[in-house]
Amino acid sequence: MMVKNTEKGRVTIPTDMDVVPETKEIYERWGADAIRDCDGTEFPEDLTKLGAKIYATYYTTRKDNDWARANPDEVQQCYIMTGFYTATENTLEIPLMKGLAKDLFQLNRKDCQRWWEVIDRTTGEVVSPEHWEVLEERDAVVIHDTVPFHDYTVSFLAYLIWDPVHMYNTVVNDWQGVEHQITFDVRQPKTHAFTMKRLRKFIADHPYVNVIRYTTFFHQFTLIFDELNREKFVDWYGYSASVSPYILEQFEKEVGYPFRPEYIIDQGYYNNQYRVPSKEYRDFQAFQRREVAKLAKEMVDITHECGCEAMMFLGDHWIGTEPFMEEFSTIGLDAVVGSVGNGSTLRLISDIPGVKYTEGRFLPYFFPDTFHEGGDPVKEAKENWVTARRAILRKPIDRIGYGGYLKLAMEFPDFIEYIESVCNEFRTLYENIRGTTPYCVRRVAVLNCWGKMRSWGCHMVHHALYQKQNYSYAGVIEALSGAPYDVKFISFEDIRENPEILDDIDVLINVGDADTAHTGGAVWEDPEIISAVKKFVYNGGGFIGVGEPSGHQYQGRFLQLAGVLGVEKETGFTLNYDKYNWEEHEHFILEDCTGPVNFGEGKKSIYALEDTTILVQREKEVQMAVHEFGKGRAVYISGLPYTFENNRILHRSVLWASHAENDLHRWFSSNFNVEVHAYVKNGKYCVVNNTYEPQSTVVYTGDGNSFPLELEANEIKWYQI
Amino acid sequence: MMVKNTEKGRVTIPTDMDVVPETKEIYERWGADAIRDCDGTEFPEDLTKLGAKIYATYYTTRKDNDWARANPDEVQQCYIMTGFYTATENTLEIPLMKGLAKDLFQLNRKDCQRWWEVIDRTTGEVVSPEHWEVLEERDAVVIHDTVPFHDYTVSFLAYLIWDPVHMYNTVVNDWQGVEHQITFDVRQPKTHAFTMKRLRKFIADHPYVNVIRYTTFFHQFTLIFDELNREKFVDWYGYSASVSPYILEQFEKEVGYPFRPEYIIDQGYYNNQYRVPSKEYRDFQAFQRREVAKLAKEMVDITHECGCEAMMFLGDHWIGTEPFMEEFSTIGLDAVVGSVGNGSTLRLISDIPGVKYTEGRFLPYFFPDTFHEGGDPVKEAKENWVTARRAILRKPIDRIGYGGYLKLAMEFPDFIEYIESVCNEFRTLYENIRGTTPYCVRRVAVLNCWGKMRSWGCHMVHHALYQKQNYSYAGVIEALSGAPYDVKFISFEDIRENPEILDDIDVLINVGDADTAHTGGAVWEDPEIISAVKKFVYNGGGFIGVGEPSGHQYQGRFLQLAGVLGVEKETGFTLNYDKYNWEEHEHFILEDCTGPVNFGEGKKSIYALEDTTILVQREKEVQMAVHEFGKGRAVYISGLPYTFENNRILHRSVLWASHAENDLHRWFSSNFNVEVHAYVKNGKYCVVNNTYEPQSTVVYTGDGNSFPLELEANEIKWYQI
Repeated sequence: MMVKNTEKGRVTIPTDMDVVPETKEIYERWGADAIRDCDGTEFPEDLTKLGAKIYATYYTTRKDNDWARANPDEVQQCYIMTGFYTATENTLEIPLMKGLAKDLFQLNRKDCQRWWEVIDRTTGEVVSPEHWEVLEERDAVVIHDTVPFHDYTVSFLAYLIWDPVHMYNTVVNDWQGVEHQITFDVRQPKTHAFTMKRLRKFIADHPYVNVIRYTTFFHQFTLIFDELNREKFVDWYGYSASVSPYILEQFEKEVGYPFRPEYIIDQGYYNNQYRVPSKEYRDFQAFQRREVAKLAKEMVDITHECGCEAMMFLGDHWIGTEPFMEEFSTIGLDAVVGSVGNGSTLRLISDIPGVKYTEGRFLPYFFPDTFHEGGDPVKEAKENWVTARRAILRKPIDRIGYGGYLKLAMEFPDFIEYIESVCNEFRTLYENIRGTTPYCVRRVAVLNCWGKMRSWGCHMVHHALYQKQNYSYAGVIEALSGAPYDVKFISFEDIRENPEILDDIDVLINVGDADTAHTGGAVWEDPEIISAVKKFVYNGGGFIGVGEPSGHQYQGRFLQLAGVLGVEKETGFTLNYDKYNWEEHEHFILEDCTGPVNFGEGKKSIYALEDTTILVQREKEVQMAVHEFGKGRAVYISGLPYTFENNRILHRSVLWASHAENDLHRWFSSNFNVEVHAYVKNGKYCVVNNTYEPQSTVVYTGDGNSFPLELEANEIKWYQI
Repeated sequence: MMVKNTEKGRVTIPTDMDVVPETKEIYERWGADAIRDCDGTEFPEDLTKLGAKIYATYYTTRKDNDWARANPDEVQQCYIMTGFYTATENTLEIPLMKGLAKDLFQLNRKDCQRWWEVIDRTTGEVVSPEHWEVLEERDAVVIHDTVPFHDYTVSFLAYLIWDPVHMYNTVVNDWQGVEHQITFDVRQPKTHAFTMKRLRKFIADHPYVNVIRYTTFFHQFTLIFDELNREKFVDWYGYSASVSPYILEQFEKEVGYPFRPEYIIDQGYYNNQYRVPSKEYRDFQAFQRREVAKLAKEMVDITHECGCEAMMFLGDHWIGTEPFMEEFSTIGLDAVVGSVGNGSTLRLISDIPGVKYTEGRFLPYFFPDTFHEGGDPVKEAKENWVTARRAILRKPIDRIGYGGYLKLAMEFPDFIEYIESVCNEFRTLYENIRGTTPYCVRRVAVLNCWGKMRSWGCHMVHHALYQKQNYSYAGVIEALSGAPYDVKFISFEDIRENPEILDDIDVLINVGDADTAHTGGAVWEDPEIISAVKKFVYNGGGFIGVGEPSGHQYQGRFLQLAGVLGVEKETGFTLNYDKYNWEEHEHFILEDCTGPVNFGEGKKSIYALEDTTILVQREKEVQMAVHEFGKGRAVYISGLPYTFENNRILHRSVLWASHAENDLHRWFSSNFNVEVHAYVKNGKYCVVNNTYEPQSTVVYTGDGNSFPLELEANEIKWYQI
């Protein structure tokens, strides 16, 4: 049964000058083996003798305003689009800084006729530079010869004169009198040379440091603030702050066609993850990946040369590093660390190939927002741990850690105690799991426009932040993060290049709204893509569509896979057709449901075709249905927010879609609040209670035998096979 | 106060052989002046001496199977598309009659290589006729050289060997042993000649008849039944049963380009009203209007020559007559009669220009479905009358009438009595209204792809039939049918041809879902259209958008008029933008609301732009908002099903949008269940209780003076100004 493991290691703790004895105490109690500094903390000399690994946070792009001020031409830049302005006469003045934080941006007026773009958004046409000029006296563009009642936008370059993360921290924590840290761009020649020297000096100045923790390399994800210093736009995957004329000229040479600001601006959508990526944007990302990897490798090589490990923080200035793409492993990093918000973000770290180890930064950070009188850090820690644990049990990170002000945490002894148990639990499970692949009942692939580049991160806008419009879809990814499948993320491009990729997949999943990159949009007009997917299902494959899978109006269909899914969306175009199929049916997929299914936002106006089996319809809108196509099976679900019950629905859907209903009672818990994970090679399996209450269940082992079991709240029990 | 008016006239009643004394009694009691036969009834000789006008129903396209059988090549035809069939090999057989009633259709195999079309729906390409053949032994097409996993459809011509209305009546009423009435096509040369003789003979054979009531001319709206004789497809506006190679060759000559079945098939959507009409479909409709008008005129001329009036039933075989288009008045009809389901269908009749009089057929029909033991025909009659009365008070029909088996109605004396009161009430209001235009506070135009051709009929699928996906939009049209505005229906084409059309409009309304003909779809990409609409609002015009007005993804906007409306739809593309405007505000528009607004189906994911005033948001989805654009004002409403309260919301929206808040208390009732209509020229006004309960209100006259008033259920009170 459960083994208490007090072995040391695999845990990183934060410290500061004023908590030296406390650091030592926690170091022992939690069995830590690494200590880190944080933004705004200093590392105490005294702790260098503990024998712990010591991490030092390193900022490649800020914290040297002297350099930044001396090289204003190498401050980082960002593409920004103004709002839409309607011309009412033949001249239109567009203010450029309206709606933008004045402290954040400064126009880059240099060669603006080349690098800026004025667009008539009513026609989509570029306004020739002869027809507009930038005013010197105020930050504005004047367009001459406008067409009355056309809308115009200006896409322009601005310097990031305040690092967006530093601004965020300053504003959110209401720091007073803090000097704004100006960015500098390591991709530029002078700063490039300077940076390599600066890095060597930093390592030389911190001889006790073992691990340089890069935060991160060169380009901040898109993060824009408005005039009131409120967040205006955030895209954890945004590339618009990774630009400068210097690198764009290189880009032009590489791709052989002229750059256009619109490739980044993208009508003001900035190529966010919902947009079906254009060829040019893909080209730009590929260029950035290669260039960022090259430059990051230089820093990593120096790090190694100076005797340190190189660790990358997956966040902030991570743009271009794309951990699931080929270029990433060429950087030569030793480790990646990232913040863990849920199972998906855990897998976003733990699945990264090509590094020696991965580390998860767990919540809550030891900050006053949680660690104040009346705060309940234990509750937050439990939720965070139990949510992430599902995913760890599928693919573990190698280390866990915490951040913030240790002093604050020390005032909550029950928290200190709870984290001690987490550390022990983590080490135990890590030992039990290491070196094995857990039992996978099926091979499942999420199909979208991004594929592996957005593994686990699809349906994220800003890391794990909730969005009303995406939680019903993100729930599927979260469920997968802890599910007993071999999970892949593949793109339509992957199928185009090699349709045989589908041969190694049991179930394809397509999740999201119509005409987004998540479901594919116009990609479904490509006969090769849609034929390959239909062939896959026809020959026995499984398909699960959530939301508006394959949604794109074309040739008589809104859901392009309507013939496979057996459902279609009523857009008005088929209101004339009488619809007789509305009866609900009992089904294998719903056998564990305790009440009405929670479809989250669900979908309106979906109806079933003639030969489709409806599982759930509400007010004549189908929420769930199954359909056979050839030898294959398809499941339609209108939305599936993450709950343990929905998790079970997805599991049964995967099994049914892949004709594996008979595999249900293998490594299985009758109670869906409890899960069973088997590590056959290691001869171990565990039963884990994902809830904060005790649970009763019947556990099925790999041979179908079963036994009843009671579990404490959150409990994990380990067994030998 | 209310005047009981027992004057005779303006009422039509049905009769039959077995109800001669009853007919006479009702004729007197209801003050009727016209008597009609019905489908399946005979006219009693005895009644010809009453002095009443006598209507005879005339069927141009059926009731002569001898002719039809002798001329099988002139039986009516219909374009039909099969379902989608997926090829799994290099050959695919598609059954043509699957899902179709065998009694209804018979393939027209003649010249099928010219008139049929096989389409690869995966590519949208036509399969060349060399690659397919029609099987003789069974009703199927075999396609050779198919691409595996592409979908294919066959568009083919079939003869309508059973008149769809006759089939409908037979199936619905479960008539046994009835001979199927075969259609014949008056557009064909032999039947054309025959028909003119047949008509003369009919009139000669019925010397007592004064009015030939055409049901209707030549082409049934699209009405398809399935193998189980269930309705499969119905489009009251569908042109797909108005085709034959004979007329299509004429069409080709007229338009100068080759005809394609796809112009009618339209991917299987058959150009229903939701589809943005293609140029070719518009050409075809225009061709049909001209040709139908020409031929109908021939029949009308004969009718006149033979001393009868010509009345058209607006329904069944009415395709091509389009009563709001120019060609219609050239037919020379004396009258139009139509069924009245609500206010919109009333105006669909009463607004028809170019005829001497219009007549509404009121509900319920004297059929056993209502007139049976335990039935409540008075309730149905009240609902029908009170709903239609709102519209009659704006634009009266000239006559009212009833249909069915009088014998059945006689068994319900309270019904006979109620209709007597309706007849009197109608005559009174007709006298009070005649020759005037009621007081119109504003000029309002509904803007869509159809314009005047679908006046009052937009958002109808099958006449007034309820559809979950359209009642929230049809409610706006219903509200307008009884509202004190000068209402126009204009098309985008009208604006393109003459933008000054907007000069005579106070408020534009755009209602419906994105990318449908109701809101315009890609039409908004036309700079002339969108500029004209923006200019209209900017210069002080009002705009009311309901649902997804101007919805079409293009150049950074989903709602193309987002800048005017102040709202946008979250499709995922703008999830990265922080949204701070969620506060609800009190507003003039909502001042009479008694509780939460009923938006019907409403809309999800609408958010407000920065400077927009939100009236209602639910769970961070805006349902109603107002926004100023230049000197103009826009109102956004997510849906507005027809209720008296919503009617008031629309009225206040119209007033606010057109800066006419100060006109609210003119000819106005404080209680929204009661309305006031003024006929200034005639020196009359009325106050009408639209509900089935007594109401108290304060009535405001044209000068803003007011008085309290109590009204009985349904009551209408007349006053002198």
